[in-house]
Amino acid sequence: MSGVCIATYRSYDDKADFNKKALSIAVGLTVGSWTELPEAKKAEMEKHLGKVLSVDVHEPANAAPGERYADIRIAYPEINFSRDIPALLVTVFGKLSMDGRIKLLDLDVSDDFASAFPGPKFGLNGVRDLLDVHDRPLLMSIFKSVVGHDLANLQDQFYKQALGGVDLIKDDEILFENPLTPLEKRVEACMEAARKAEQETGQKLLYAVNLTGPTSQLAANARKAIDAGANALLFNVLSYGYDALHELSSDPTIHVPIASHPALAGALYPSPHYGISASLLLGKLMRLAGADLALFPSPYGSVVMPKEENMAVKEALLQPLHRLRTSFPVPSAGIHPGLVPLILKDFGTDVVVNAGGGIHGHPMGTSAGGQAFRMAIAATMQGMPLREAGEQQGNEPLKAAIEAWGIKES
Amino acid sequence: MSGVCIATYRSYDDKADFNKKALSIAVGLTVGSWTELPEAKKAEMEKHLGKVLSVDVHEPANAAPGERYADIRIAYPEINFSRDIPALLVTVFGKLSMDGRIKLLDLDVSDDFASAFPGPKFGLNGVRDLLDVHDRPLLMSIFKSVVGHDLANLQDQFYKQALGGVDLIKDDEILFENPLTPLEKRVEACMEAARKAEQETGQKLLYAVNLTGPTSQLAANARKAIDAGANALLFNVLSYGYDALHELSSDPTIHVPIASHPALAGALYPSPHYGISASLLLGKLMRLAGADLALFPSPYGSVVMPKEENMAVKEALLQPLHRLRTSFPVPSAGIHPGLVPLILKDFGTDVVVNAGGGIHGHPMGTSAGGQAFRMAIAATMQGMPLREAGEQQGNEPLKAAIEAWGIKES
Repeated sequence: MSGVCIATYRSYDDKADFNKKALSIAVGLTVGSWTELPEAKKAEMEKHLGKVLSVDVHEPANAAPGERYADIRIAYPEINFSRDIPALLVTVFGKLSMDGRIKLLDLDVSDDFASAFPGPKFGLNGVRDLLDVHDRPLLMSIFKSVVGHDLANLQDQFYKQALGGVDLIKDDEILFENPLTPLEKRVEACMEAARKAEQETGQKLLYAVNLTGPTSQLAANARKAIDAGANALLFNVLSYGYDALHELSSDPTIHVPIASHPALAGALYPSPHYGISASLLLGKLMRLAGADLALFPSPYGSVVMPKEENMAVKEALLQPLHRLRTSFPVPSAGIHPGLVPLILKDFGTDVVVNAGGGIHGHPMGTSAGGQAFRMAIAATMQGMPLREAGEQQGNEPLKAAIEAWGIKES
Repeated sequence: MSGVCIATYRSYDDKADFNKKALSIAVGLTVGSWTELPEAKKAEMEKHLGKVLSVDVHEPANAAPGERYADIRIAYPEINFSRDIPALLVTVFGKLSMDGRIKLLDLDVSDDFASAFPGPKFGLNGVRDLLDVHDRPLLMSIFKSVVGHDLANLQDQFYKQALGGVDLIKDDEILFENPLTPLEKRVEACMEAARKAEQETGQKLLYAVNLTGPTSQLAANARKAIDAGANALLFNVLSYGYDALHELSSDPTIHVPIASHPALAGALYPSPHYGISASLLLGKLMRLAGADLALFPSPYGSVVMPKEENMAVKEALLQPLHRLRTSFPVPSAGIHPGLVPLILKDFGTDVVVNAGGGIHGHPMGTSAGGQAFRMAIAATMQGMPLREAGEQQGNEPLKAAIEAWGIKES
C-alpha cells in the first residue's frame, strides 16, 4: 500500500469491543478526533486519518481469563511523521504501548518511506565479498573474557581464535573504553594478531570492535577504530536507538560492516502481552537501520528463543524488503560443533555460526575449537554425518568436540 | 557502597537454584570465569568481579507454576564500564535480559559514577523559578489535536489554553517536523500567542516544543527552537536512548527545561516477568539523564499504572539522589478537575497536573477548562471541598467540570 505504514498489533482483553478499540487507536494516534469534525474539515483531514484494515478476534470457546485477544492491523498515513525510526515507533506505539496488554508484532512501511534508508552498506553478500567466502556458512568467535584483561592477553586470545580458521571475531559487548585495552590500541593489537594468523591460515578475517561512548562521539569513535585498522564494528543498537545505527550505516566515511548486538532486547520481545516482536525488533528494524550482520538469541542454547520466533527473525533479515540488502543472520548462544547440522538445516548456508564457550571450552584448546567448527561445517556441506567425519584422519578436533558436547539432531 | 553499581533483579523460575544463578550472573557479566583462574590471577581480577549481595527466594507453600521467584542483588564494579547509561544498562542487563524470566527492578550507582551526570539543569525548583510560582501545583495542558492542522489552528489552540491559566503547554509527542507546522514557525506562532495571553492573565508560561529529527541534529534542532523563542523542550527519550537526553541536558547552550515523554515505555515496564521497572525507567534514569520534568502514566485514567508503581516513580524523582536536582513529577492521562484533590493527596503540591481532554472537553470550552483546574487547585490548597468551591460566584467553570466528570475521592 502506498503512503501508509501498516502496523500489526496483538491486543489482549477479556471483554473489549476490539473493533471499537481498533478505531480509537486509528483515530487517536493520527487526527485525534473524527466524528465531531465538520464535513468540510473531514475532507481536509482525511489524508491524515489512520484506517483500520482488519480485526481478527481469537476467542476460544472455553477461553480462560487472559486468553482472549485480537490481531489488529492499522494503516497510518506516512504524511503524519518524519522519515526516521524514532518518529515511526513513537507514532504507532508511543502512547499505545502503555494502553493495556498490547504488543507490536510487525510494521510494513511503504517503499517511499523506506527510500530514506540505505540499509546495510555491505549486507550478506558484501560481507562474503570482503572475506572472499561464498560457498559456506561463516564462523564467528567471541572472546572468552575481556574485562580486566590487558592488551597482551586480548592479542593472545585473538591469535588463538584466528588460528582456528574463524571468519569473524567480535568483541564482548560489555567491553567499553577502558585504560587496559583502549579502542585504538586494542584494534592495533588484534589486527596485528589477525595478520600473523593469516600467514598461517591464508584466510581473511573481520574483527568487529565494540563501538561505545557518548552518542555524539559514536561516528568519531568509529572513524578512530577504522583509522587504527578495524575492518568491522559491533554496536549495542538498543541502548542508543535505531537512528544511531541508521546514521552510522549511512555515513560514507564508516566503510566497514556493522554487526548489531541484541543487548537489552530481552526487556522487549519475550512477553506475549507487551513489547515488540523479535522479528521486528532484531530483524526488520535492524536491517532497515543498516545492520550488515544481526545477532539474536539462537533456539539452541541457554539464552533461548522459540524456534518459530527464530525463523521469523531470519525471514525478516533475508526475504525481499524494499530494495534493501539482506543482513547476515547470526543466531547466538549455546552453539557447539555438534549443532552445526541442525543450524544449517534451520538456516541454510547463509548464516554465521557464532560460538564462544563452544570454541574456548574445546578440550584441545581454542584453536582446535575453531577447527572443530570448520570441520563440522565442511562435513555437513558434504552431507557427511559428523560422527563419521570425526573419525577421519586429521579431524581429531571434531572428534573431541563431539565427545565433549555430543551431537544434537533436532 | 563505593565504586560499585548495585542492580536489583526479580527472577522467576519454578525450580532454579537461585543462589547458583545469582553467582553465575555476577561472574558471567564481569570477569567471565572465576573458579578455574589461578590464585595469582584471582588476586589481580578481584577488583573486576561482580558480587552477589543477597538472594531472597519467594516460594509460597502452595506455589502455582510460575509463582516462584527470587529478588537478587548484585554489585558490579564500576571500573568495568564507562560512565554512561548505555554502558551501565548493557553491562547489568544487556545479555541477561534475554536469559529467561527476569526483570530489572532498580540500579544504585555510586556518587562517583553519578558525578558524571549533572542531571536536571533546572529541576523542580528551577522550573518554579522560571514561572515564578512556588506555592501550588503547576498546571500543564496538551494540544487537542495537532496532526494535519496548520499554524493558525495551533496558535488558536495555544491561545485558548494559555487564557485558561495553565503554566505549561506541551506539544503532542506525535508532532514531528512537517510542512504545515515546522519547528521554528510553530515556536514563533505559539510564543506570540503566549505573549498575547500573558497580557490577559499576567502569567508566565512555558511551551515544551517536541524535539525530533536525526540523532546527530537534536542539539542543533534544540538551539533552532530556542533561537525562535522556545522556553522548554519535550523529548521522546526512549526512542533515542538516555544518553541523547544526557547530552542535551548537559549542553550549556540548551538553557531551557526538558520534559521527558514516556512514549514506548509500555513496551518495557508493565510485565512482571520481563523488562525494567517503571520507577527506574521513567523515574531514576530520566532524572540521572537530566529531565527537568518527567511525564509518566497516572494511576487515574485509561492509560493506567498501578498506584504503588506510581508512587515509586514519584519517589525516584523527588527523594535525595546523589547531588542531583529533583525532577517535576507529571502523572498524565485521564486527568479532570474532579481528580485534583486526589492528585494532591497522592503527590503533594510538588506535582504538575497535566490534562488534555479534561481541558479541551470542558462544556464551556478550552479556556474554561484550564480555569476549572486552577479553581480546583486553589480550593484544594485552601482545604475547601470542590463541590462547595464550585458553588462560589465566579467558579462556574469548576461547577460545570464537576457536573461533566464528577469528583473522584479515591
